Amino acid sequence: MRVLILGGDGYLGWPTAMHFSQLGHDVMVVDNLAKRQWEAEVDGAPLEPLPTLRHRLRVWNEVTSKEIAVAIGDIADNHRFVYRVFEEFQPEAVVHYAEQPSAPYSMIGRDHAVDTQRNNVLGTLNVLHAMKRHTPDAHLVKLGTMGEYGTPNIDIEEGFIEVEHNGRSDRLPFPKAPGSFYHLSKVHDSHNIHFACRIWGLSATDLNQGVVYGIATNETELHPELRTAFHYDAVFGTALNRFCVQAVAGTPLTVYGAGGQKRGFLNLRDTLQCVRLATENPPDPGDFRVFNQFTEVFSVGELAETVQQAAAKLGYDAQIDHIENPRIEAEEHYYNPRNDALLALGLEPRLLSEELVETMLLKIAESADKIDHATILPRVRWREDAPTRAAS
Amino acid sequence: MRVLILGGDGYLGWPTAMHFSQLGHDVMVVDNLAKRQWEAEVDGAPLEPLPTLRHRLRVWNEVTSKEIAVAIGDIADNHRFVYRVFEEFQPEAVVHYAEQPSAPYSMIGRDHAVDTQRNNVLGTLNVLHAMKRHTPDAHLVKLGTMGEYGTPNIDIEEGFIEVEHNGRSDRLPFPKAPGSFYHLSKVHDSHNIHFACRIWGLSATDLNQGVVYGIATNETELHPELRTAFHYDAVFGTALNRFCVQAVAGTPLTVYGAGGQKRGFLNLRDTLQCVRLATENPPDPGDFRVFNQFTEVFSVGELAETVQQAAAKLGYDAQIDHIENPRIEAEEHYYNPRNDALLALGLEPRLLSEELVETMLLKIAESADKIDHATILPRVRWREDAPTRAAS
Repeated sequence: MRVLILGGDGYLGWPTAMHFSQLGHDVMVVDNLAKRQWEAEVDGAPLEPLPTLRHRLRVWNEVTSKEIAVAIGDIADNHRFVYRVFEEFQPEAVVHYAEQPSAPYSMIGRDHAVDTQRNNVLGTLNVLHAMKRHTPDAHLVKLGTMGEYGTPNIDIEEGFIEVEHNGRSDRLPFPKAPGSFYHLSKVHDSHNIHFACRIWGLSATDLNQGVVYGIATNETELHPELRTAFHYDAVFGTALNRFCVQAVAGTPLTVYGAGGQKRGFLNLRDTLQCVRLATENPPDPGDFRVFNQFTEVFSVGELAETVQQAAAKLGYDAQIDHIENPRIEAEEHYYNPRNDALLALGLEPRLLSEELVETMLLKIAESADKIDHATILPRVRWREDAPTRAAS
Repeated sequence: MRVLILGGDGYLGWPTAMHFSQLGHDVMVVDNLAKRQWEAEVDGAPLEPLPTLRHRLRVWNEVTSKEIAVAIGDIADNHRFVYRVFEEFQPEAVVHYAEQPSAPYSMIGRDHAVDTQRNNVLGTLNVLHAMKRHTPDAHLVKLGTMGEYGTPNIDIEEGFIEVEHNGRSDRLPFPKAPGSFYHLSKVHDSHNIHFACRIWGLSATDLNQGVVYGIATNETELHPELRTAFHYDAVFGTALNRFCVQAVAGTPLTVYGAGGQKRGFLNLRDTLQCVRLATENPPDPGDFRVFNQFTEVFSVGELAETVQQAAAKLGYDAQIDHIENPRIEAEEHYYNPRNDALLALGLEPRLLSEELVETMLLKIAESADKIDHATILPRVRWREDAPTRAAS
């Protein structure tokens, strides 16, 4: 299968590209390398310096004798580039990660909110129009986020919900109340993609992904220079990855607020498994399908405790600090999202265990001298002043 | 009250500005005059040439001795301009019409879809950030559209719906399934504004407006050069206005498809009444309030028949043609939207009657020689090819 990976230089995009290549698919990666610039802008860096995309592609070729094609360009700003990629490569599946991926980054201020929605929403509009023009039968596998739903007081279904109201009923898009301009950009994408499927008969799977953790996949382990970007800073790092780095660094694990915030989580390896399952099992033509992509639900507090316990076994005495929450979010809430669809397709979750956390801690310990504490504490606040009005 | 009208050069914005000025409020209009360029781009023109905004402001001053301030600039492309306007004028209410308003325009192709969402979504993001910075206690009165909801098989509530699911319940944003990239831009706006209210405590009223018809208001009638832009072309004209022009021109009224498409409609004068009621009755601080703003529901077929009958009384023998529907939309469907909130605030609907249509026809007849038939038939199709896949 010809698989186009948009955002193939990223934390998830790069391992996905290698995974599909290893499975024997014909893979092309597209990236504008913007993530490296955004990371530099917030004075952050991955734990280990990231080799250039072209270097990693060369190493991949040397290690596996497989080739991954590459095109460097901007899908939001340069639609001619997007059209040319689709016309020439003729993808059968398009895995779309090419978005600004950080909630805090989108909340820095006006320019970052606007840039995030411009980049993500208009980039996806270009992809939809390129598909319509050049590959109307291709399958779009789009990375969304569980954060699109927010934390409603009812079970979270997968994209759609059967609503009964005044004696009538309809299957409607699940209502969305996301928590940042980044999460909002994914909500906008979902609405735009749904429309393109309804109107033009495109096929898409919207993968509403939970918080990803992990540092290694089967393919990154083939060679040190095939590693993926492991971020642990407050802007681009995800919760578990950050906690592990803090444990190794000997600084307290910083839980935002009460820590009762529940989220869906999954291992980086399961991201690859989910994307592969979605791609290998495309929807019917014209279908807009939504999968909730996570394997377990934890509160942030539970997550910190899991890291603390695993760290203790390795001799790290990790403390847990509840710091003022820089975000506006419910810190105690009902949370029961469904994830049946991917399980039904055969997803075998690699659940979080102390053993797995230990593996991460050991890996991070190899780079302990490179940890930059200054980038871990949150500096971006959802509201500058003390809260004077309740979030409702 | 200091009332800022964004999009004050438009079909609705201009009459709104005069109305608030007439009521004694301190009014400033902002516009980038883009609508005139978009109209030129599709080779259209209002029925009567539109005097410049500055000319109309001068006439308004001469006729009423009242002054309306003006700032020409682009709210999407120039955030410094937006910030300056908010800082200097310090509005207490912000009526926001400053968006690309046409569904067909947004469906011309990729560039128009992208431009529509860029202009509308990023412009509104700039407005929200300017409010946060300079006037956090102001009330945003944002023009949305009933088209955000699409045509669900359940009653359409006003912005939110109480969902019961698996024994639990929550009041959630009403699910959205709109029918064009333009309508989608309004859905994106609604999500962004809702978030800004939740996070920053801004106050907003989202007016999900139906299809507006009409040519005159109390203020436009004070002087011929105070008229508003009356569009009847296939891109910027609305259904009833277009039918009336076709009746006067002696060409068939062109109903798209079966004509069973039901929509909410309201008189231009009632738009002013609704916007005034929303503005004079602001929500609580931090509230995001949604009103459905229409007075009656008709099918497009019924609308054509109403025009046909009124036209007959004036001696016009109007035929009704069912032409191929350029849009993808349900042509027979359930439709029962609520509009209680504005009625509860005191809205007194000016319902559509044959008499009112006759008044419009007579007014249009004065300009009969200026009607350009070539711009009335739709040329923008939602899908170029014959439909091969059902819209679902």
